[in-house]
Amino acid sequence: MKNLDQLKAVTFDVFGTVVDWRNSIAREMNLIGDKKEFSIDGAEFASAWRSLYQPSMSKVRSGEMPFERLDVLHRRNLDTVLEQYGINQLSELEKVHLNQAWHRLEPWPDVVEGLVRLKERYIIGTLSNGNVSLIVNMAKYSGLPWDVVLGAEIAGHYKPCPEAYHGSAKILDLAPHQCMLVAAHNADLLAASECGFRTAFVARPTEYGPDQTTDLSADHEFDVVASDFVDLAWRLQA
Amino acid sequence: MKNLDQLKAVTFDVFGTVVDWRNSIAREMNLIGDKKEFSIDGAEFASAWRSLYQPSMSKVRSGEMPFERLDVLHRRNLDTVLEQYGINQLSELEKVHLNQAWHRLEPWPDVVEGLVRLKERYIIGTLSNGNVSLIVNMAKYSGLPWDVVLGAEIAGHYKPCPEAYHGSAKILDLAPHQCMLVAAHNADLLAASECGFRTAFVARPTEYGPDQTTDLSADHEFDVVASDFVDLAWRLQA
Repeated sequence: MKNLDQLKAVTFDVFGTVVDWRNSIAREMNLIGDKKEFSIDGAEFASAWRSLYQPSMSKVRSGEMPFERLDVLHRRNLDTVLEQYGINQLSELEKVHLNQAWHRLEPWPDVVEGLVRLKERYIIGTLSNGNVSLIVNMAKYSGLPWDVVLGAEIAGHYKPCPEAYHGSAKILDLAPHQCMLVAAHNADLLAASECGFRTAFVARPTEYGPDQTTDLSADHEFDVVASDFVDLAWRLQA
Repeated sequence: MKNLDQLKAVTFDVFGTVVDWRNSIAREMNLIGDKKEFSIDGAEFASAWRSLYQPSMSKVRSGEMPFERLDVLHRRNLDTVLEQYGINQLSELEKVHLNQAWHRLEPWPDVVEGLVRLKERYIIGTLSNGNVSLIVNMAKYSGLPWDVVLGAEIAGHYKPCPEAYHGSAKILDLAPHQCMLVAAHNADLLAASECGFRTAFVARPTEYGPDQTTDLSADHEFDVVASDFVDLAWRLQA
C-alpha cells in the first residue's frame, strides 16, 4: 500500500459502486409492466439496457461520435431495448420519465453512513460517466452528500480515458496522488492507477444479479480493499 | 414578480453575497502584519487587492488573455498589491498561503441556515467567478452545503458574460427560467435576467466597508428582494 498521507480527495465511481442500478431500474420497469399490463422481467430488462452502455460510449471514446451526455446515450439505448422487447405502449413523456430512472437509483445500504464519515476528513466527489444533472438529481433523491460533482461531462471524456481522471484532479487543483478513486470495477481502478490516482476496491458482488462472475474481488494491487463504504472510512481514518 | 412555480435550482454569487471577503482577508492580513512586525490596515489591503479583480477578468472577457482560473488572477493581483504596499517580507510559501485566504472566507451569519432550508426544496449551487477548488475548499471550511459547484471555470467564461449563466443552466439540464441567481450585486443580476434567469437581490451593505455607496438596494425589478438568506428561503417557500 502506498502512503496515503497526502490524500485530499476521495472520488467515486457511481453506477454499481454507490448505487444499485439493476434493482432500482427493475423496480421501475416492473411497475410500468403492472400499470400497462404487459409481462416483463424488470431485472432482465435493466441488464439488457445496461449492456448497451459500454458500446454506446465506445463510439465517443474512439472519436467516431462527439461527446454527448449520458442521458442522451441512455435514451438512445432505451429506444433500442424497448424495440428489442417489443414494448410500444409508452408515450414520449413516459419514455422521458423512464430514462430518468437513472436519476433515481438507490444507494447500497452502507453508502450514506460511509460518505458522511469520509466527508469529515476528505473532499468527496463523484468521478462518474453520469452527467452532472443525473448525479445531482440522484444525490437529492438518495441523500448523497457530495462536495463536488466531477467526471465525464466536466472532463469532456468518458472513463476509462485518462483525460477523465486527469481532468478531475486538475479541476480540484490536486496532484493525482492526492486523489483516490473508489470503484467496484477492476478496469476503472486500473485506469485511474495508471493516471497516478490512489485506488480503493469495494466489491459489489450482486451488481449484475445473483450470477455475477466478474469483479467479485480485486484482481490487482490496489491501495485499499474494503468490504463496504463504512469499512473504507475506517481504513482511511475518517 | 414572475411565476416561480417552475424554479428548480437556486444558484448563488459567492464573493460578497455568501461570504464576507473583506473582513476575512483583513483578519488574515492583520495577523501577518503582527507576525512579521509591519504596520498594515488589513481592511484597506483587502479592498486594494479586490480592486484589481474586475480589471484582471476584463482581459479574459475581452479575449486579450485566455481563460485562467481565479486563483491565478488573485495571485498576480497579490504580487501587484504587495509591491504597492512595499511588503517584501513574505516567503513564496507565505504568499501561496495568503493567496489561499480566498478559500477561507467566512459566510455572513444568515447564510448557512438559509442554505440548509433552500436545499430541502431546490438544487442549490454556486454560480461564481471563483474556481472550483476555491469554492470546494471554502465550502469545507465554512460548512456551505452546496449540491453542485458551477460557474466561470465550468463554463469557461467569467460573469457577466452570458455564457457563464447559460453554461450553468445547460449543465443542470434546465431552462434558464428554472434557475435563479441570488446576488448582492445589481449588475450580476441584470446580466442573469437578460439570460432568462429568475433573480433575487440580497443587500450586503457593508461588503465594501462602512462607507459603501453602491448596491445598497435593488435598482431593477428583480423577482425577489430579500433581507437575508433566511428571508429568501421563506419567500421561496423552502
